[in-house]
Amino acid sequence: MSPRKIGITELALRDAHQSLLATRMATEDMVGACEDIDKAGFWSVECWGGATYDSCIRFLNEDPWVRLRTFRELMPNTQLQMLLRGQNLLGYRHYEDMVVERFVEKSAENGMDVFRVFDAVNDPRNMAKAMQAVAKTGKHAQGTICYTISPVHTVEGYVKLAGQLIEMGAQSICIKDMAALLKPQPAFDIVRAIKETYGEETVISVHCHATSGVTMVTLQKAIEAGADCVDTAISSMSLGPGHNPTESFVEMLEGTRFTTDVDMDRLLKIRDHFAKIRPRYAAQESAILVDTDIFASQIPGGMLSNMESQLKEQGAGDRVREVMAEVPRVKADAGHPPLVTPTSQIVGTQAVFNVLFGKYEKITGEFADLVLGYYGRTLGDVPPTVVKLAQAQSGKKPITGRPADLLKPEWDDLVEAAKALPGTDGTDEDVLTYAMFPAIAPGFFAKRDDGPKSVAMSEAEYAAMKAAETSGEKTSGVSAATYNVSVGGRTHTVKVERA
Amino acid sequence: MSPRKIGITELALRDAHQSLLATRMATEDMVGACEDIDKAGFWSVECWGGATYDSCIRFLNEDPWVRLRTFRELMPNTQLQMLLRGQNLLGYRHYEDMVVERFVEKSAENGMDVFRVFDAVNDPRNMAKAMQAVAKTGKHAQGTICYTISPVHTVEGYVKLAGQLIEMGAQSICIKDMAALLKPQPAFDIVRAIKETYGEETVISVHCHATSGVTMVTLQKAIEAGADCVDTAISSMSLGPGHNPTESFVEMLEGTRFTTDVDMDRLLKIRDHFAKIRPRYAAQESAILVDTDIFASQIPGGMLSNMESQLKEQGAGDRVREVMAEVPRVKADAGHPPLVTPTSQIVGTQAVFNVLFGKYEKITGEFADLVLGYYGRTLGDVPPTVVKLAQAQSGKKPITGRPADLLKPEWDDLVEAAKALPGTDGTDEDVLTYAMFPAIAPGFFAKRDDGPKSVAMSEAEYAAMKAAETSGEKTSGVSAATYNVSVGGRTHTVKVERA
Repeated sequence: MSPRKIGITELALRDAHQSLLATRMATEDMVGACEDIDKAGFWSVECWGGATYDSCIRFLNEDPWVRLRTFRELMPNTQLQMLLRGQNLLGYRHYEDMVVERFVEKSAENGMDVFRVFDAVNDPRNMAKAMQAVAKTGKHAQGTICYTISPVHTVEGYVKLAGQLIEMGAQSICIKDMAALLKPQPAFDIVRAIKETYGEETVISVHCHATSGVTMVTLQKAIEAGADCVDTAISSMSLGPGHNPTESFVEMLEGTRFTTDVDMDRLLKIRDHFAKIRPRYAAQESAILVDTDIFASQIPGGMLSNMESQLKEQGAGDRVREVMAEVPRVKADAGHPPLVTPTSQIVGTQAVFNVLFGKYEKITGEFADLVLGYYGRTLGDVPPTVVKLAQAQSGKKPITGRPADLLKPEWDDLVEAAKALPGTDGTDEDVLTYAMFPAIAPGFFAKRDDGPKSVAMSEAEYAAMKAAETSGEKTSGVSAATYNVSVGGRTHTVKVERA
Repeated sequence: MSPRKIGITELALRDAHQSLLATRMATEDMVGACEDIDKAGFWSVECWGGATYDSCIRFLNEDPWVRLRTFRELMPNTQLQMLLRGQNLLGYRHYEDMVVERFVEKSAENGMDVFRVFDAVNDPRNMAKAMQAVAKTGKHAQGTICYTISPVHTVEGYVKLAGQLIEMGAQSICIKDMAALLKPQPAFDIVRAIKETYGEETVISVHCHATSGVTMVTLQKAIEAGADCVDTAISSMSLGPGHNPTESFVEMLEGTRFTTDVDMDRLLKIRDHFAKIRPRYAAQESAILVDTDIFASQIPGGMLSNMESQLKEQGAGDRVREVMAEVPRVKADAGHPPLVTPTSQIVGTQAVFNVLFGKYEKITGEFADLVLGYYGRTLGDVPPTVVKLAQAQSGKKPITGRPADLLKPEWDDLVEAAKALPGTDGTDEDVLTYAMFPAIAPGFFAKRDDGPKSVAMSEAEYAAMKAAETSGEKTSGVSAATYNVSVGGRTHTVKVERA
């Protein structure tokens, strides 16, 4: 029997740098790898999503649609994949259905092939419209299960959700483990149960982060259970809060009943490319290597650093432990939502508020929306006392319907508002950029013509930094060095040490 | 059925800092973790070996025997484990049998419980004496298979070697993957075959490095095949050229038919301890994160950096690629020895010589010894042409017997030589230190009374470095900073940048 082929989704161009380098990688640092990525034989290459879109216009002065078209042009043979937050699209609120349709249509038109559609609270009603829109374009709609651990989350529950996604037209199912919580045995159990329930031909993709150090084994167990595709990142853009290394995944299958179709020579070229790029983003780099605390706290790395900075701003940097203990309680009160954008921010901020101001003394507008149903239906029930408090403080009523049903048509207004902004080019793409990020888009449009602004060190700056590190004589790790110092117009050559 | 218990050997005190921090960790940085290590419930704690012994007297001005007794005192409940190079003991040559006996006896007397005995070329005759000596002390003798990949290395061959080790009295078998080459499937096959051949009660321990990114899965497959113990390192001392993280291994077994006996709260305390220590050794830290090239080149990380510095000394730093291509050929010519101390150094240096001076134009004394049988019998044959060249250049004859049989009794001479050195205390331990490292021991004895000298940054230095990093204004990663600079006796406060 010939070994079964496992597809690989390469993450270097989206989630890898989002997780490792604060989503800051510039397109110019990616284009050099595109030919090798295109010819490596990946099932797909993930290259677009909410955070990369945001980062493009907020930090890099890049048009995200130009980035997408660049990828399409440079990678004609590989499926381009994006992560889409269902009815949220790439923004932080629900959009009216026509905006969803237009966004998907334009994304497909600009080159997107695979749409991984997810919802933070796993409410299928928040994914339905986006899935339909994808189907209409003839592209691949992938329905997503956000994995979390809670008293109400069970294998049976995930299997049921998979069924709902399949009914909605999902051509494949993604199990998305954004917090590296998915251990090998539950991965095996969920994949097996989905296959047994809906047929072995159900295509399943598994996305794991590497943070907890267990998920390479999770991928192995998932494919043993029948998973068809896995997400990995080229080794020079892997590990820590990122993902498991692509080359290692390929190598580890040797001699087993599984194989991949990828070209190792191409992988090594991609690796060498990013090995040169990554150090120039050292200032953006995350310091996490392995973290198993997450099994207890369920707090993803990015969320923790967010909460820490919130606490510091309030002069309460010493209360992190209290907040970490509060998070699981707030998560439970919210009906056990998976912690992923935007629920991770909402739960995290409310936990900070509870510690600073007293339990639910101050409920944020977003937390009120979450427990009142405006983000959709969570799997667990929200305690009536919490609903009452949220209702009282927000002045809103709980809802049980699909949140987007409350929205009025908004496309025409968005077009009008966007077109009034200096620097817009009148395209639907610009309207969508404005719709996604109304606060940042105007500034971006106004200075778009200045062209991309990378936040990385230039090669010259990096070389200078390395040279400086090497030339500094080390005394037990604290560097002393010889400098040319100008004092009062005269230059002295002196050896200095930190005062 | 209750889950099967897997034993854990914690590596933080030996191989972890050897692999990550150039073996430089001082005893004072370990003692604070010993109580938690002792009470965590490990099967054993590896804490002594050739490189740590060497580093103690070469860099840290520490008596390695004092370190061992310190561990024994602080960890009364846990098996202490060491790595012993068979007839080489902890040195770089073969010792006459009486020295071997005396070394093992003294190690046991000072507190060692488990002796992991290995030989670089897997020649059982080089391990036999050490194994007997361990048996005599009543301690645990673990026989070791050094894993490598070559045309002559097969599952059957490893099984045969395991049998020879068992016959020699091994109470357990270690599969030692010092180069992170052991993939999941061969691990499964070897463990299963040993169990099926010699009985399920055969105790098997698996040691893997993490470098290639595949070996967490290797450990999983090994225990599925019946392995009883695994080697891991606490997460804050894990990954890269080190090992898989202990906490992750424990967590990943949840819900499976395996479990461990360790106490997670203790693990987290051990983790926190070393998380504080490791950054103070930043100057010694290896930069490798993942490396799958090793599957093709078989060159372990430490060996590569060695060869690079040899080439640079010869002004041939640009010929690394040629040397990397030469290594597998030299390894084959030497009869496919596993690359581990000392064969990695011997093969690496000869590869450098071949590239610099022409193929076997200059054969090192050590390489001649290796191909002529003075290190024992390699599994593959050495080509007759290579034997002839080695014979001609070294003036030595090939041998087929046990190398140590050529040695004359040497204990009394060693005692006499050691006792003549200033600063020796007349103990057998000092004689053994002299025997292992005759070039360094005299200097160490002479200044032993000065006490330990750590090479780490002090906590104050580390805090100063962090403060400097934070205070230095960053201009795209190149730091400018304000210093107090003394020029000609006067102190100026100036802002400086690299000239």
